[in-house]
Amino acid sequence: MERKKICIVGVGLIGGSMALQLNEKGLAAGLIGVESSEIHASRALELGLVDEILPLDQAIRNSEAIVLAIPVDTLTGLLPQILDQVTNQIVFDAGSTKEQLIEAVKDHPKRGRFVATHPMWGTEYSGPAAAVKHAFENKAVVICNATDSDEDAVEWVKQVYRKIGMHLLEMDAVSHDLHAAYVSHISHITSFALANTVLEKEREDEAIFEMASAGFESTVRLAKSNPAMWVPIFKQNRENVLDVLNEHIAQLRKFKSCLEKENYDYLQELIENANRIRRILK
Amino acid sequence: MERKKICIVGVGLIGGSMALQLNEKGLAAGLIGVESSEIHASRALELGLVDEILPLDQAIRNSEAIVLAIPVDTLTGLLPQILDQVTNQIVFDAGSTKEQLIEAVKDHPKRGRFVATHPMWGTEYSGPAAAVKHAFENKAVVICNATDSDEDAVEWVKQVYRKIGMHLLEMDAVSHDLHAAYVSHISHITSFALANTVLEKEREDEAIFEMASAGFESTVRLAKSNPAMWVPIFKQNRENVLDVLNEHIAQLRKFKSCLEKENYDYLQELIENANRIRRILK
Repeated sequence: MERKKICIVGVGLIGGSMALQLNEKGLAAGLIGVESSEIHASRALELGLVDEILPLDQAIRNSEAIVLAIPVDTLTGLLPQILDQVTNQIVFDAGSTKEQLIEAVKDHPKRGRFVATHPMWGTEYSGPAAAVKHAFENKAVVICNATDSDEDAVEWVKQVYRKIGMHLLEMDAVSHDLHAAYVSHISHITSFALANTVLEKEREDEAIFEMASAGFESTVRLAKSNPAMWVPIFKQNRENVLDVLNEHIAQLRKFKSCLEKENYDYLQELIENANRIRRILK
Repeated sequence: MERKKICIVGVGLIGGSMALQLNEKGLAAGLIGVESSEIHASRALELGLVDEILPLDQAIRNSEAIVLAIPVDTLTGLLPQILDQVTNQIVFDAGSTKEQLIEAVKDHPKRGRFVATHPMWGTEYSGPAAAVKHAFENKAVVICNATDSDEDAVEWVKQVYRKIGMHLLEMDAVSHDLHAAYVSHISHITSFALANTVLEKEREDEAIFEMASAGFESTVRLAKSNPAMWVPIFKQNRENVLDVLNEHIAQLRKFKSCLEKENYDYLQELIENANRIRRILK
């Protein structure tokens, strides 16, 4: 696989981790970073994530492939402008929502150069210092509406993800956004809300935090996630997230009703049903 | 610290992991298991968790200390009967609720031999095969109503937990049950409900599980937990769990309302508030 000169727009958690993988797997002939935060830009250089930081226009001209790893609202606004400047470069993104993004460029003359992807990996941390080696490995990556992209572009992007160790899924943007609401977005909302539930209480008593155990940490760690990333995701995937959130509140109400009515047989049933998740999680 | 002949009632996840620690830290002069499930009993012997399995009465007579690691409903029923047979043995439990248990023995002539404890550790698995080495280390253990126990009993139990590497907290049973609802019990309910939310959807589409990522796994893994352990906990801590669950549903409704009204400034605020959990979780 031929090395390409690659530009990474947004050298944070995702862009930085991608940079580390592109280097380690020998996929980059050079890595240019584009980064609006000066602090992040110098940190990315210090950490050796990219070789240089350039303004966007210049970075596009000097690259053969462009990775977009910025919040989905900025991404949706920026992608048409980037495609305006693209000649034959391959552009792909790592955003958590796909429908609005694809809609924003559907009639663009360079639409074919863009491949819409969502590598299903992240942590609750952000910024270039949060970048980690071996990220994305053994996780799924979703490629959306692949037939709207040029064949050479899709093939190269697929090869990149395969080299990183991801397994490929293909689906349309509408299905992606619905599924992402279930397997990722709702987990963040429950975690944010659980943190707020406990912090509300904490005003009254510090002791509960001394008692916090691994189970608590597991369900609440996503609550550390960056609002700059997550508000735009919830905004773009509003309808799906609302549907799932309504279903989740309905499921919680079943537990509430069991306890209120002291119906422990039904409580047992609800938990046994939840146990079926064992089939899916190792 | 003098070794004691120790009996473990319930050689499952908690009792089995305790057995491994008592052996490794050189605290046991011998380990007797009491186990109602024949399958678990033979598995515990095979795994070398205990030296022998005996009927409860005989095990009590042959022991100097007794650890109770059984579901809290059975525990509350059994503790008075165990204390009836105790001469000078030390008895302590590992249950997740404390108020009803302590109430059940408050006038027992042997109350002093019993120390009520809750080591804040567990996993989503159960049975003797789920026992792991180095469990409990660097976690908190809560000792409740310590002044109702004989001084020698409390001191020995504290030393055991210290040797295992736990840090000690002391509080009354009422406070314990309230705090446990916040830092442990609600996490299990949200996880069970989240699993049910997704499993409800799964009927329609299998693709979402191929996409499931680490964030999803983190928030939903507790949903694998055993109902035989958890139904009795929710039952005994019903009022506190209901209070926390109501608060949690109210917090989720704030997220719902933000999305419905497209009030993204308030959504940002809610997430920023949740981020304050960083202070508590490393």
